[in-house]
Amino acid sequence: MEQILKDYIDLIDKKLDEFIEVKYPNSIFNSMKYTVTLPGKRLRPIICLEICRALNGDVESAIPTACAIEMLHAQTLIHDDLPCMDNDNFRRGKPTNHKIFGEAIATLAGDALLTFAPQIISKHSTNLSSDKILRILNEFFQYAGAYGVIAGQVVDIENEGKVDKKSKEENAKILEFLHTHKTSDLFKLAFKTGAIVADADDETINKLENLAEKFGYAFQISDDILDETSTFEELGKTIGKDKAAGKLTYTSLFGIDTAKCKVDCLVNECRGIIKEMNLKSSILDSLLNSIVKRSGLK
Amino acid sequence: MEQILKDYIDLIDKKLDEFIEVKYPNSIFNSMKYTVTLPGKRLRPIICLEICRALNGDVESAIPTACAIEMLHAQTLIHDDLPCMDNDNFRRGKPTNHKIFGEAIATLAGDALLTFAPQIISKHSTNLSSDKILRILNEFFQYAGAYGVIAGQVVDIENEGKVDKKSKEENAKILEFLHTHKTSDLFKLAFKTGAIVADADDETINKLENLAEKFGYAFQISDDILDETSTFEELGKTIGKDKAAGKLTYTSLFGIDTAKCKVDCLVNECRGIIKEMNLKSSILDSLLNSIVKRSGLK
Repeated sequence: MEQILKDYIDLIDKKLDEFIEVKYPNSIFNSMKYTVTLPGKRLRPIICLEICRALNGDVESAIPTACAIEMLHAQTLIHDDLPCMDNDNFRRGKPTNHKIFGEAIATLAGDALLTFAPQIISKHSTNLSSDKILRILNEFFQYAGAYGVIAGQVVDIENEGKVDKKSKEENAKILEFLHTHKTSDLFKLAFKTGAIVADADDETINKLENLAEKFGYAFQISDDILDETSTFEELGKTIGKDKAAGKLTYTSLFGIDTAKCKVDCLVNECRGIIKEMNLKSSILDSLLNSIVKRSGLK
Repeated sequence: MEQILKDYIDLIDKKLDEFIEVKYPNSIFNSMKYTVTLPGKRLRPIICLEICRALNGDVESAIPTACAIEMLHAQTLIHDDLPCMDNDNFRRGKPTNHKIFGEAIATLAGDALLTFAPQIISKHSTNLSSDKILRILNEFFQYAGAYGVIAGQVVDIENEGKVDKKSKEENAKILEFLHTHKTSDLFKLAFKTGAIVADADDETINKLENLAEKFGYAFQISDDILDETSTFEELGKTIGKDKAAGKLTYTSLFGIDTAKCKVDCLVNECRGIIKEMNLKSSILDSLLNSIVKRSGLK
């Protein structure tokens, strides 16, 4: 299992490095490459490739899309870390992009990734038809933009420090919106595009969207738990910042025990969907197990 | 002439307003809409529609692309005006986006436009084939990203205050890169995509790219001249900021007389290309005349 995961990560890392060629003006490409190639779990691209494989698609054909999703993920990290947003100094154990390249270049590197990523899909998906590429791009635009991950970031920012002024029900509703858009949307993009490359039917794609929603929730809540129980050395980013900034998290709203329970419940729902869909994937099993483990459940 | 231009602007303004529907979370859509719908010359979308018309294409089919280019233009304005970039307080006579919505939302609105604009092309170009939409999107990605307008902005920022440390030849070379990418690239996008919608052949598209390059130069130099000779009331933005910031401009490098000469020369070259291509367009003539006029040549 470890080896299959490692092989995926090696493949993705190699292609990410290849896709971002440093040209004049070098700083922008170096800045893009810096955050994109920081060692990470590569969850989203792995899911894209693995769903494609599990649905008998050609994994090779999904590589540009998988890498584009990781680039989009890096874009959200670069801009979320900016001083005008979360003002973070560390990410994945290294200084954040603007700490190395300055705010202007970091802003522009994030901008550049937003069109570079879909360009990679369009340029390198040579085995896919125009119709299929366009379908993938449409999913990308939907989840990358104001209807997707950006909507989540906006609501996150606008609710900072307002948790105490709202009822638990109101906060729970906002939290659901945050989880859906800030986290699940990029997982939806990964699950769905992997399936599109594999020529899956609409029913399958809808089920995967539902699976991605729950997977994203579980992952985000496990992240909130980790933020309370880990150290900087373990996570590579500033710990407890969400709490200090008065941000809404699952653990702050419901407590750590309920959070663990919720992760357990969501992971079981995910397993149920996977079983019902008859998806044979030891990788998905392993990813769900790691969510259970990082939540301190086992 | 005035009436045809006004009809184009009215059509574009109406569609820009329609395309950006305000939904929850409202602030992001309001912020996008604010800068996109600020009254402007709408040069780039007009060119896209007019080239399509002059090449006997269906103008209606070019509207989503034309509006997407204006959205991209607005995106560059929002991010260029940010405190970490040019730190401008006024644009088109109104407070800049971050002055109204704050830096975080302005940054996210720019981000959102980068995927919203191509999404408009993909979603609303219902009369175009997938192949043609993909071709337009590829042009969009090329000129919007790190190979295009962003490369220009990077070089602009990195050369701020360094003009005196370089030879005139070095500065002239940098200036050419700036004009090509910061200005001409969006015009190339407009000229070329208008032609793609109209099913133009590659030779025509190449000639239009060359025309756009010269048109962009002429327009940018006339802008530099205006920046030296106008008032805030006339331009709606802070005057003389480029000079104060030690930025490289055509006028600062070559003086205003040479700048006027250069505009005259470039406009004549544009007229030559238009004539050679047998493009019948009173709109293009009129746009070139206005560049001549704003440069104080006539």
